[in-house]
Amino acid sequence: MMYIMPWERSDTRDRMITSAALLLREHGVTGTSFARVLEHSGAPRGSLGHHFPGGKREMVADAVRWAGGAASAAMRHAVERGDSSAKLFSMVCDFYRRALVESDFAAGCPVGNVAQEAYDDPTLRGAADEVFDDWRTILADALVADGHRRNNAADLAELCIAGLEGALILARVRRTADPIDAVERRLTTVLRRS
Amino acid sequence: MMYIMPWERSDTRDRMITSAALLLREHGVTGTSFARVLEHSGAPRGSLGHHFPGGKREMVADAVRWAGGAASAAMRHAVERGDSSAKLFSMVCDFYRRALVESDFAAGCPVGNVAQEAYDDPTLRGAADEVFDDWRTILADALVADGHRRNNAADLAELCIAGLEGALILARVRRTADPIDAVERRLTTVLRRS
Repeated sequence: MMYIMPWERSDTRDRMITSAALLLREHGVTGTSFARVLEHSGAPRGSLGHHFPGGKREMVADAVRWAGGAASAAMRHAVERGDSSAKLFSMVCDFYRRALVESDFAAGCPVGNVAQEAYDDPTLRGAADEVFDDWRTILADALVADGHRRNNAADLAELCIAGLEGALILARVRRTADPIDAVERRLTTVLRRS
Repeated sequence: MMYIMPWERSDTRDRMITSAALLLREHGVTGTSFARVLEHSGAPRGSLGHHFPGGKREMVADAVRWAGGAASAAMRHAVERGDSSAKLFSMVCDFYRRALVESDFAAGCPVGNVAQEAYDDPTLRGAADEVFDDWRTILADALVADGHRRNNAADLAELCIAGLEGALILARVRRTADPIDAVERRLTTVLRRS
């Protein structure tokens, strides 16, 4: 039996979730084992059961929500600051491009990776779907604010998310950020046209 | 030691590759074991070493090339028949949408799934990259034939492939073909504008 103080508990759990999200970007669900997360986060082995009574599934779902929520928060912040939808999408592309290049073309999207691999797990499927839904809502609202019609904005927001997730798949196997650049160039042109 | 006649050998190998491609669509690389492929194809266990001396990696790479090549052949056929790039893209979307709906939202793209999971394996990475490159070339050429400028055509072809691969990820977790419909609607509009 391990005793963990509430503040330690929270800190350790947060570090494990961050580590899991970073590992999911590169190694997917199969490659993100508890052992790897413990090593990456430096968390003590005994804390697993305390922090994630629901097992690896709970940890991965929390990592998806955390990573997705961080991206949503950044997008909402940009919208509140008055950024256009095109600028917003460029910011997101830039974030993923940097991670991709800095990781020598290993880092994709933790949410997309979980969605791809674990679509048949209701908990993980649900977590990924909620994140995508949140991103789509933020982007569609920004597009409407830019003067796009609501129906068109919904389609375009979907295309932005699909295009970026797909570009990450292409970029990792081609080992270049070109697909992200191409998707960004084409879509920002479309976003600017309302 | 098993003896396999040349015609049997070829037939068994082909059936295993087809089975592997079908399983990869739903279960990815991790879920497409030799055991599952044997069960799905009805091939005799002893034939594995004969047909795939390079092991599972060789089987998966061949399945990626086979599935990718079949899609390329269908696209080339449509181009030769005089289909526009928009019609070509709609045909591809329709193919994936049908597989998705018929499989109760389990079937994605075998090439995309392998790219996502096995980008760090040089053989599988290379096989997926070659297929994507072939698709991009066919689409970009069709776009140029429709009157799009070469640079723009290259970006648009990239966006079509990325958008469809990403839409499949979104569709499987949302359990609806809506993302594919949205991507198809938006992109065919852009493709028609040259």
